[in-house]
Amino acid sequence: MRLYWSPVELASRLVKRGITYNFASGSPDPSLLPINDVKRSFETVYENYGTAILAYPGAGGLRELRIEVSRYLNENLNINANWRDIIITAGAQHAIKLLSQLLIRRRTAIYTENPTFVETVAPMRYEGARLIGVPISDDGMDTHELEKLAKNNGPGIVYTVPNCHNPTGVSLSRDKRKHLLEIADRYELRIIEDDPYTPLHSNAEPALKSMENDVIYVGTLSKILGPGLRIGFVVTSGRLRNNLEMIEQHDFATSTLTQYIVYDLLRRGVANRVIHNARRLYPRKLRELVDSLNDYLPGAIMYNPYCGFYSFIRTQINAWDLLRKSIRQGVAFVPGDRFFIDAGKQDTARLSIGSIRTELIRDGVKVLSSIIKGV
Amino acid sequence: MRLYWSPVELASRLVKRGITYNFASGSPDPSLLPINDVKRSFETVYENYGTAILAYPGAGGLRELRIEVSRYLNENLNINANWRDIIITAGAQHAIKLLSQLLIRRRTAIYTENPTFVETVAPMRYEGARLIGVPISDDGMDTHELEKLAKNNGPGIVYTVPNCHNPTGVSLSRDKRKHLLEIADRYELRIIEDDPYTPLHSNAEPALKSMENDVIYVGTLSKILGPGLRIGFVVTSGRLRNNLEMIEQHDFATSTLTQYIVYDLLRRGVANRVIHNARRLYPRKLRELVDSLNDYLPGAIMYNPYCGFYSFIRTQINAWDLLRKSIRQGVAFVPGDRFFIDAGKQDTARLSIGSIRTELIRDGVKVLSSIIKGV
Repeated sequence: MRLYWSPVELASRLVKRGITYNFASGSPDPSLLPINDVKRSFETVYENYGTAILAYPGAGGLRELRIEVSRYLNENLNINANWRDIIITAGAQHAIKLLSQLLIRRRTAIYTENPTFVETVAPMRYEGARLIGVPISDDGMDTHELEKLAKNNGPGIVYTVPNCHNPTGVSLSRDKRKHLLEIADRYELRIIEDDPYTPLHSNAEPALKSMENDVIYVGTLSKILGPGLRIGFVVTSGRLRNNLEMIEQHDFATSTLTQYIVYDLLRRGVANRVIHNARRLYPRKLRELVDSLNDYLPGAIMYNPYCGFYSFIRTQINAWDLLRKSIRQGVAFVPGDRFFIDAGKQDTARLSIGSIRTELIRDGVKVLSSIIKGV
Repeated sequence: MRLYWSPVELASRLVKRGITYNFASGSPDPSLLPINDVKRSFETVYENYGTAILAYPGAGGLRELRIEVSRYLNENLNINANWRDIIITAGAQHAIKLLSQLLIRRRTAIYTENPTFVETVAPMRYEGARLIGVPISDDGMDTHELEKLAKNNGPGIVYTVPNCHNPTGVSLSRDKRKHLLEIADRYELRIIEDDPYTPLHSNAEPALKSMENDVIYVGTLSKILGPGLRIGFVVTSGRLRNNLEMIEQHDFATSTLTQYIVYDLLRRGVANRVIHNARRLYPRKLRELVDSLNDYLPGAIMYNPYCGFYSFIRTQINAWDLLRKSIRQGVAFVPGDRFFIDAGKQDTARLSIGSIRTELIRDGVKVLSSIIKGV
């Protein structure tokens, strides 16, 4: 199975129209997207740079943007990186794909939370990775289990979303972070930290990258400024940094125009303003989802989500069957089976609060629960 | 050598500032870029679609854009394709990379003009392709030689720029086009037709795709609307079409915003207007380059360029040495060695008329000739 449809894409194809309760999308809340500032930034870079905004992008990304991202990382995530060590990509997914091409050979061991984010492991599978699932609990990946697995399976890569995990919402505890870094050092594991959600949460644990510079950090501005801009980045150094720049020549995929726009948005502090609002909105929405699930589907939540967009639940019945039924009543979500390393539990689902309006969450859960209960 | 710097990138890194005569860049003429229409289209899609222009892109591309591209292909290139058979990519280079990933295994035979475009063959080499150079003359690839090579090396892929070849400027004659299609059929060769320049020339031979639907067609709007938008496309069908959509999920690299902008530009006929002007400007510039070369460096032109941006010349001395000297006198170009399949002739160069102003071409060639002649 080298190529397959992501369940996120499949679910979104089932949903054509008429969805009132969209728990499927990992998109940010449209009310937070700084659409007017995007317009203003477009006008600014049009005035200031003229046709340069339509020129070919260079490998590695626009220098001005790389400098702004380095400031942003320093201010918001306590990550200190020289701008040269920040490689701009066409979104975090593109970053993961390029890293997969560079770091993964046939049978390379990839240790990752199980369940994990199905879309980012797809390019790893395509390169022939041997995915090794590590169980998780409410405080993240079971690092003792990781250690046992690493002893048996040898050196490789840890691909992890330590904060506000996708699809479970859990965060790795401080102690486990230290343990993870120790294990990585002891068993020759390179860590890829995929981190889209930390900036959206005020009480998040520190990024692994801020604790250990060897960590390969993948970030994105999609959840803050808008996924349609396709601006993500990798923070790394040395040979991998150079190789990333070289392999970017193979697609030159990152739009010069959107790099300029994001540069101007960062420069004007728009990202920080969105983050300020996001830190009030998303935790409230996640709370509302958890409360509603506890009220209408008690016991369904499989992990206790700490932050981010997601809650992962047991659906009791086959989740694809449930999805087909629930779409007819205006509720969409993503079935959970494919999030498991070996296409596991058929009766699970990922619910997202990313783009649904707060006041619709409770009703959506109510509708879902009535379908599950066959009412 | 799985990863290496493109000479185009290397040359552009040598050139930091102070270049008066830029023969290096394959960018389109800035005076033709419809920057004000890009602004107008931004405003239109902002008004009409709001935050949808910042949403995640779907695999395969924006339906509205695919429909407009299908109209564009029909009007300008006599290619008839259902919009579903048009896969939007983040530029043609991205398209070539995805195709390389899908079609190339270790030792897959890739038959291509020699010299060929160094940047597009880089992802093919990365996938382990066995590149087989086919000699070219003023009327394109030597198809008789291709036939001999195919007999010896077996089935594979023909990667070709049949119109306005990069880096030589030649075009494949009508008879050779027919012959190429016959050979492809007889020896099980799939054809990838890379076609950035045909729309810019009024007297071009028909695209291979318009003659034979099995051809995989790679197009771009970079040379017309601006490379910084990163919008290209593949025209193909069946299983390859589906696989392209699936592998696009691995990077989701194409900006939603620039897809909407290009959709609106096509809808308003902006591309056709640019094409109208391009068909007057570029042939004049290429003529000026050829005339100047004949005047100041007689015998230097290795192939007789028919259309597009390039002329490929003999430099008499090592082209990298020449470049270092010429940059100091304000002249840039791309050394030609890497355009050869086996890093060939050190005393060759690609000169581009893409972005240099017409009135500077003659002087630039004069300066270059004086350096070569050691005056």
